[in-house]
Amino acid sequence: MQRSFASDNNAPVHPAVMQAIAEANSEDYVSYGADPYTEQVKELFRDQFGPGTEVFLVCNGTGANVSAISHLLRPWQAILTAGTAHIHHDECGAAEKFAGSKLHTVPSEDGKIRVKQLEPFLHSVGFEHHSQPGLISITQCTELGMLYSAEEMEALARFAQENNMYLHVDGARIANAAAALGLSFQELITNTGVDVLSFGATKNGLMMGEAVVFLNPELAKGFEYVRKQSMQLASKMRYMSAQFIAYFKDDLWLKNATHANQMAALLADKIRHIPQIKLTMPVHTNAVFASIPSEMIKPLQEKYYFYVWNQSINEVRWMTHFQTTEQDIEDFVEAIKELL
Amino acid sequence: MQRSFASDNNAPVHPAVMQAIAEANSEDYVSYGADPYTEQVKELFRDQFGPGTEVFLVCNGTGANVSAISHLLRPWQAILTAGTAHIHHDECGAAEKFAGSKLHTVPSEDGKIRVKQLEPFLHSVGFEHHSQPGLISITQCTELGMLYSAEEMEALARFAQENNMYLHVDGARIANAAAALGLSFQELITNTGVDVLSFGATKNGLMMGEAVVFLNPELAKGFEYVRKQSMQLASKMRYMSAQFIAYFKDDLWLKNATHANQMAALLADKIRHIPQIKLTMPVHTNAVFASIPSEMIKPLQEKYYFYVWNQSINEVRWMTHFQTTEQDIEDFVEAIKELL
Amino acid sequence: MQRSFASDNNAPVHPAVMQAIAEANSEDYVSYGADPYTEQVKELFRDQFGPGTEVFLVCNGTGANVSAISHLLRPWQAILTAGTAHIHHDECGAAEKFAGSKLHTVPSEDGKIRVKQLEPFLHSVGFEHHSQPGLISITQCTELGMLYSAEEMEALARFAQENNMYLHVDGARIANAAAALGLSFQELITNTGVDVLSFGATKNGLMMGEAVVFLNPELAKGFEYVRKQSMQLASKMRYMSAQFIAYFKDDLWLKNATHANQMAALLADKIRHIPQIKLTMPVHTNAVFASIPSEMIKPLQEKYYFYVWNQSINEVRWMTHFQTTEQDIEDFVEAIKELL
Amino acid sequence: MQRSFASDNNAPVHPAVMQAIAEANSEDYVSYGADPYTEQVKELFRDQFGPGTEVFLVCNGTGANVSAISHLLRPWQAILTAGTAHIHHDECGAAEKFAGSKLHTVPSEDGKIRVKQLEPFLHSVGFEHHSQPGLISITQCTELGMLYSAEEMEALARFAQENNMYLHVDGARIANAAAALGLSFQELITNTGVDVLSFGATKNGLMMGEAVVFLNPELAKGFEYVRKQSMQLASKMRYMSAQFIAYFKDDLWLKNATHANQMAALLADKIRHIPQIKLTMPVHTNAVFASIPSEMIKPLQEKYYFYVWNQSINEVRWMTHFQTTEQDIEDFVEAIKELL
Repeated sequence: MQRSFASDNNAPVHPAVMQAIAEANSEDYVSYGADPYTEQVKELFRDQFGPGTEVFLVCNGTGANVSAISHLLRPWQAILTAGTAHIHHDECGAAEKFAGSKLHTVPSEDGKIRVKQLEPFLHSVGFEHHSQPGLISITQCTELGMLYSAEEMEALARFAQENNMYLHVDGARIANAAAALGLSFQELITNTGVDVLSFGATKNGLMMGEAVVFLNPELAKGFEYVRKQSMQLASKMRYMSAQFIAYFKDDLWLKNATHANQMAALLADKIRHIPQIKLTMPVHTNAVFASIPSEMIKPLQEKYYFYVWNQSINEVRWMTHFQTTEQDIEDFVEAIKELL
Repeated sequence: MQRSFASDNNAPVHPAVMQAIAEANSEDYVSYGADPYTEQVKELFRDQFGPGTEVFLVCNGTGANVSAISHLLRPWQAILTAGTAHIHHDECGAAEKFAGSKLHTVPSEDGKIRVKQLEPFLHSVGFEHHSQPGLISITQCTELGMLYSAEEMEALARFAQENNMYLHVDGARIANAAAALGLSFQELITNTGVDVLSFGATKNGLMMGEAVVFLNPELAKGFEYVRKQSMQLASKMRYMSAQFIAYFKDDLWLKNATHANQMAALLADKIRHIPQIKLTMPVHTNAVFASIPSEMIKPLQEKYYFYVWNQSINEVRWMTHFQTTEQDIEDFVEAIKELL
Repeated sequence: MQRSFASDNNAPVHPAVMQAIAEANSEDYVSYGADPYTEQVKELFRDQFGPGTEVFLVCNGTGANVSAISHLLRPWQAILTAGTAHIHHDECGAAEKFAGSKLHTVPSEDGKIRVKQLEPFLHSVGFEHHSQPGLISITQCTELGMLYSAEEMEALARFAQENNMYLHVDGARIANAAAALGLSFQELITNTGVDVLSFGATKNGLMMGEAVVFLNPELAKGFEYVRKQSMQLASKMRYMSAQFIAYFKDDLWLKNATHANQMAALLADKIRHIPQIKLTMPVHTNAVFASIPSEMIKPLQEKYYFYVWNQSINEVRWMTHFQTTEQDIEDFVEAIKELL
Repeated sequence: MQRSFASDNNAPVHPAVMQAIAEANSEDYVSYGADPYTEQVKELFRDQFGPGTEVFLVCNGTGANVSAISHLLRPWQAILTAGTAHIHHDECGAAEKFAGSKLHTVPSEDGKIRVKQLEPFLHSVGFEHHSQPGLISITQCTELGMLYSAEEMEALARFAQENNMYLHVDGARIANAAAALGLSFQELITNTGVDVLSFGATKNGLMMGEAVVFLNPELAKGFEYVRKQSMQLASKMRYMSAQFIAYFKDDLWLKNATHANQMAALLADKIRHIPQIKLTMPVHTNAVFASIPSEMIKPLQEKYYFYVWNQSINEVRWMTHFQTTEQDIEDFVEAIKELL
């Protein structure tokens, strides 16, 4: 199979991560996280996010989102999120099932939500017939590859705090966001007032393993039970932890994300001036959205795996990742041009 | 750290499994199981369990148990299981939370349940105030290391079928059971009338990844949604699948399980005649249960990691695994003797 | 307190219903519905809806909606409904909590949904990341007092059936709808292809008690357990059943609903030509929606209890019921005029 | 139909309660509890239980138990209760479904639980694989008609408090308990340290309506949303409230319960010396448990409705209620004697 432009989770595991897994395979270790690798991971997250950080490794991104949110909410509290949010659109209703909470969505072209859109939900506060707004969930960068600035995140965090809500960040591509914004995790997450982060790394070089990161240790209390009850506790956790150790070593996360972002920018640059192709979103991270001639979709998909995002306007999504090469981009653009 | 006798999930990953993971790391593949490794795994399970088998890889054992059961039951149906069952005792209430079902337990010394113990629950059938018996969940081999014979499983399956219930097997150590009984998976599971199996492999040499195995394809319908909604769908699934390919190749599963069982037998043989030690369970698989002098528990734990099973009688559990060596056993017995 | 125009559930109990309750108070009867009153109610519903009807009395409207829907769906199936639907907007997330299902809403000005709006959800069918469309829930008459014609209901039922979905009707005011359309329940519900109906009667003269009505007996199987598990089974059920007996006797339901509808029409007629008041919805049933001068809302509310529906346009909702008199309407209109 | 000895919920509604309902039927009132009757009920409960009491009317006993418990627990916390408890045995798994919590039961001959039986559950505290003990639920009087003394309740409350658990009382027959013990509700419930009470009254003369009573107002916060989401909020609540007003007026509750208890004592006295009948429980409240000749069960049931409690020992349960007369008892005993 050739390079995929379908998703960054079509990528392999970064060699340094794979090596770390192999090196963790030496001897017996206690399971469920009582091992030295996991201890080290906790420290590494504190280094990245600040000393009050509590981190819990979980099995996947949906598990991170849903366990984190269900921990912070009662079922009669609602989640406010964008209509494009992964938690709404791509998790088969796991949030409703496990948290028992209603999801209220606001429309969004770029995947971002604005404080202004959330204000109407305050009318429900105190009215027993309505789910009570309890948590704002944003995706950074969004499912459309767009970025919240630190100021926008602060504004959302402030609004949440003023109205007794929490701010959750779905960070499936948080590294791409941090890289694009030139901010550390502490600047982007801790300092902006986020309460809990789903820290994704599988799309940026890991094999498997995401993390729920609480920025306030008080909020983490009891989460170990939620992790277990939500079926997110891995027995041989050291193999997850070893991946994160490699991920933070020498800023591998940043290098991978920066590269992926650059490849998307390169792809965008190379197609921007093709008249039959129209970029439908600015390219800030590792996703390129474009409207292309409908008749070329099928033949191009036969060569390269990718998704149609919005059939009605022939919009496709092309994603790059840490292993996408300049040559891959050139070959892909060549294939496009041949089909035009 | 030294050899652990605490649990078979303290073991490393088998080298052949690790190598398979590394070899799967070549290039881009479609995520969520639409990759050739996962296709191959489906065939391998059909080879092992029969042509009507439908298999779904999940993240961990609790995920396998709970997703499988919640798929087969409505929340007003009850699960009948042993008081010792992992699903009751060690999964933080995940079954109640996710399936919404009541667990009815029957007392068991050896972890096994008998048809006779289940008959009283039939009194509830048709009475709207009672949860309706819907599924029998057994663990093979049990949490106490004991085995159901094929005939005993058939009897339970027949009872289940006659009373409109399903038979679920928690097979966290199904390989140890099959090895000990000298039966193939098809003989042990498919032919005895099991409806769904949680196929565990992490305790027998894998890194991460369990499987839900439906023996009747009709029962599997719609389970893909349950897997996703129960947060058990891994994105880079090929790395799970590669493990299973290695696991079935050259009967690695059987070799590993047989070895683990032999090491437990060896340990039992070496301590059986020590007067201060009393084996509390027959040793059929890879677990040794023994009452030992209370004053030696702490010092021995300082050398070797293991659990106290029943404090009131100073009963400890010692588990062996595929990498436990004869030398490990000898060293361990030596340590015991020194402390006596 | 004066007449309320806030809601038809501000009304008292109809005298004939109250008398039936009192007459049911003679002697001991078996609880939980095994009494002759409840037996009679089952027959009465068959008379109204057809011989295949299965009816279950429940405690309230939210209980009817949620128990019915959760019975028909698995949690990974989605409910498609209008953004204005009571089940979405006014039940504090009970559907998500108890059914575990996602609610997908479509925008609606009049509370009705059209087949066209539902078609896009079919894109999710078969895609394991998306909740699977499982049930369409409509409100007849809608929360805005609007009506589906029998043909519109047939179209929705056909669309549901063709796509393996169920059609649920929230009939909190089903009597008002039937009266307005001049249709029997069988014509309106059974013959149009509805699968399950929440039959509301509390707003039309009962004290307490709603009913879940399955039009196909196969679909009702096992619902007795859902009713109990959803906390909707009343012990002294005869007092609910007696109400329904009175409700169907001499078409009390129809008289009540017709009267309520007429009173709303009368109110609308009397205010239609007042220049400062604008009817915002046609008046078909027992609700009048109107934009009124903002400065008169408070003083009018001091005299008559009613709700502001949409603050941004000073829209209020005025509801009539079976006991609203012409004099009440005249007094109310008088009060309005005085404030202008 | 004749007098029933099956259950106190086979009784009619007390005439004073029925009259109160009829008198509440005068005019329009705001729904969902914002009416003067419900305001008065809140005061009456404060009179009975103390000034910090917060009361919420709900639809039925299962609704009271499950909504109260789910409000106080997170799903990873377990409920500790007796194997005989209604919440375990007779609510079709509603607690597991709605609260998501595991129920741990302890064996009990008389329906009571002892602190000693609960201590072993403390071993689970802090162990993430186990549901965390979160609430003790007792039934007063028990399903076997037995009583906890105030001292026994205090001991359970103290144990709960010392171990960060709550104490819930299922008071389906709390009036019978208070009457038998000669204690006020404040003495029996508030002063003993109970956290929340399911206050049952339907079995003692009401038509429909139970109450969740929080003895500490802090614990009640947010319960209005739980009540709605658990489908327990009645729209025309005044008709529930009117019942409670009559129930507390002139100590009707106490008169009813005392009478019911006396009738059971009378029945016990009259059959105590019949050699073929053996009382299997002491008679403290309004239930008589007895082993009777198996051949007389059917013929007696043809005359009087009652349940077989334990088939294996021909144990039956006979319950009396506020309307059972001395003549009823005499007739019943006569019927028994004729069949011997």
